[in-house]
Amino acid sequence: MSEERTSSIPAPETLEELQAVIEAHLDAGAPAIAAAELEDLRAPDQADVVAELSEPGQQALLGALPAESIAEIIEHLEVDDAAEISGLIDVGRMAAVLDTTPPEVAADILRHVDWTVASQVLARMGDRRTIGELLLYPDDDAGGLMTPEVTGLRESLTVGMALSVLRGAEASRENMRQLYAIDNDGRLTGVLELSDLVFAGPEKRVRDVMTPDPISVETGADQEVCAQLMTRYDLLALPVVDRAGVLVGAISVEELVEVARDEATEDMLRMFGIGGEERTGEPITASIRSRLPWLVLNLGTVLLAGFVLSLFDDTIESATIVAVFIPVVLGQAGIAGTQTLTLIVRSIALGDVDQRDTASLLRHELALSVVQGLVVAGILGLIVLAWQQDASLGLVIAGAMVINLIVAAGGGVLVPLGMRALRIDPAASSAVVVTTLTDVLGLLVYLGLATVFLTSIN
Amino acid sequence: MSEERTSSIPAPETLEELQAVIEAHLDAGAPAIAAAELEDLRAPDQADVVAELSEPGQQALLGALPAESIAEIIEHLEVDDAAEISGLIDVGRMAAVLDTTPPEVAADILRHVDWTVASQVLARMGDRRTIGELLLYPDDDAGGLMTPEVTGLRESLTVGMALSVLRGAEASRENMRQLYAIDNDGRLTGVLELSDLVFAGPEKRVRDVMTPDPISVETGADQEVCAQLMTRYDLLALPVVDRAGVLVGAISVEELVEVARDEATEDMLRMFGIGGEERTGEPITASIRSRLPWLVLNLGTVLLAGFVLSLFDDTIESATIVAVFIPVVLGQAGIAGTQTLTLIVRSIALGDVDQRDTASLLRHELALSVVQGLVVAGILGLIVLAWQQDASLGLVIAGAMVINLIVAAGGGVLVPLGMRALRIDPAASSAVVVTTLTDVLGLLVYLGLATVFLTSIN
Repeated sequence: MSEERTSSIPAPETLEELQAVIEAHLDAGAPAIAAAELEDLRAPDQADVVAELSEPGQQALLGALPAESIAEIIEHLEVDDAAEISGLIDVGRMAAVLDTTPPEVAADILRHVDWTVASQVLARMGDRRTIGELLLYPDDDAGGLMTPEVTGLRESLTVGMALSVLRGAEASRENMRQLYAIDNDGRLTGVLELSDLVFAGPEKRVRDVMTPDPISVETGADQEVCAQLMTRYDLLALPVVDRAGVLVGAISVEELVEVARDEATEDMLRMFGIGGEERTGEPITASIRSRLPWLVLNLGTVLLAGFVLSLFDDTIESATIVAVFIPVVLGQAGIAGTQTLTLIVRSIALGDVDQRDTASLLRHELALSVVQGLVVAGILGLIVLAWQQDASLGLVIAGAMVINLIVAAGGGVLVPLGMRALRIDPAASSAVVVTTLTDVLGLLVYLGLATVFLTSIN
Repeated sequence: MSEERTSSIPAPETLEELQAVIEAHLDAGAPAIAAAELEDLRAPDQADVVAELSEPGQQALLGALPAESIAEIIEHLEVDDAAEISGLIDVGRMAAVLDTTPPEVAADILRHVDWTVASQVLARMGDRRTIGELLLYPDDDAGGLMTPEVTGLRESLTVGMALSVLRGAEASRENMRQLYAIDNDGRLTGVLELSDLVFAGPEKRVRDVMTPDPISVETGADQEVCAQLMTRYDLLALPVVDRAGVLVGAISVEELVEVARDEATEDMLRMFGIGGEERTGEPITASIRSRLPWLVLNLGTVLLAGFVLSLFDDTIESATIVAVFIPVVLGQAGIAGTQTLTLIVRSIALGDVDQRDTASLLRHELALSVVQGLVVAGILGLIVLAWQQDASLGLVIAGAMVINLIVAAGGGVLVPLGMRALRIDPAASSAVVVTTLTDVLGLLVYLGLATVFLTSIN
């Protein structure tokens, strides 16, 4: 039964059923049976089940699990959930759990729990020196992402000696995936893989089989830079060095897949003024903190558009039909601006765009906006003509549409590239800036043209 | 000089300078010198330089490079660029180049060139059977992403024999990173790493050191599913099997980092109606194909909003101040709806949300919209009161704001989850649906309230 269950990936429905079974055992006061059911699953699935349990359920279940199992579960939880759950265990047990997780995971969790608890746990840990050092790095740079558990081999070692060292070191399997060559001062000089050693003659030296000039980052490097390097150069692990070039750790590609996905999500959320860290399932106060400031800011900008509109109230009073097309003119320019903006923001994040591309991007988007503007304005002008039998209104609306799409294209390129030139994150609320541009200029152009050219108004 | 240049990652400025140097050599009719300069760089940087050259420049440079160097460059280009560049080489040389690249790269490029050229190249390749088989898979599923070059070891082999097999196979280093155990029929039964063999006694069997029950996918699995599995279970490579469970290939984690990033970008672009494949630097006709249909569709929906507005032209005629606040009411609801929508679309893509979460997400977003609506409406009502000295106008606008933010929240949750339930990609143009909802309902609510409650109108 349990054999079969672990032989494939559980479908979401199966996981839901198992969740119900485990909850039933917990409700029935049988945490040991619940724990046994849970341990049949793979660790990431275990983590999912635990995260969905009620707090008393979690507490009962954790009490019935050995420290090693808790460590595996905690490693696969979101760090906030992991920190919350560690609050349910006493500090001594927590120290034992974190001694079993990789040090970078332990440090990450300790960063997210109350500082007094963290220091009590840390004091009880065997590995406290390593963890203490990791805690000095912020969690979104290379130092905070790296594992300090790397295998550095002196480049002067023979291959045979290097293999004996590895055999004796009892390093984890992860640690064997990427090996590093260092000089006598511990400075990184090359990278190699186990296969380079295994299939070379034992009398060769590490320096003969290593790949020299490895790509590496210093501990302070930003996580996005690390992710870009790793993707660009197809690295399996990115070695991290201190200022003197001494090997201090490495970032695994698994870690950076998460970073790449999270950065993309953060870009999207931040463009529309959601704090990049917000995820579903957070308390409502967190959502308010993340979104309300932007809504209030946006209120200011839409009021600005309203104010522009109020300057033309004579025009609207003498021809209310002009007001009817306000959502049309603003809606089209808003969408076109967002399209361009989204493309540019993502291209920047993926490293596809740099400053020297500004002119060609601007040319492309402006030319595109003229072509699309003419098509859309043509269709719209004909619709207006058919609906209102008013050729001058059709021309005014069509003209405003073309101009506004050009404004939208210019804003969509220049706003994010300008923000980057000013060293502001080009994703940060850039949609509000572009929309304000298209709203305010759009109304000015449309209502200005209407005031000047519509005979019914004069 | 060249030693120093390759010893670190070139800064973008350095790369630009090198580009200029190489272009100068090409202009001076010295492609061999240009080629020598280029070959000092790492392959991804070489690819960058080549992609930026003019077509005659590329042609001259490619003529001076050996097939192996072209293969390395082509491997690091975007597939469209690679296909374009292969058009500059005659078919015989192209066959030699593609025989040097990994087979999945060759197949991917052949998928993107003209079919008559592809078949001529294929006919000249040594590896044509493997490539021909790969060409049968679409490029966005597991079969299209996988490399067929995997190392399957019979599980009955002894560790010593397995190591001899590996030594004799001269498999590439990438191939040694993840090893697979198979039964006598070639069916996948386990995974192992080189370290499992190297540090085990030579008399043990493969089946004793392998990890059984490996996670695998069938050739038809969608690339997004593969990326989710790899991230969730921290896999280094994902084995691919046919329907009978026979090992046919594996997807490397590097491949899936790209997929994860591309999927996030596609989500963002598609939400706003840009074809998910569009990137900067494409010809303008491609951009038009990708964006114009959406703009025209959007024109229909904003005209619907205009039509709703036209139903209330008496209201606007008798109080033009009502029109002034149209951008305010629509702009706020549009942003709030986009915020919710973005969060939900990304959460679905990251696998954080499933159908059973609908009720709790809806509760969260609706409660949030009420709280935020009251705050924003309060501020706005006071501004209107101060600006226009009209309490009933302030109340109408505030009331419309609260209701519209609730509509936006409901739409932001239900539209993407509804699309997913109907098996439509929740990213596909969902922003148009939500914006139409907030525009049309928003105008109905606001102008309806204004018509009923504003004494100046009656």
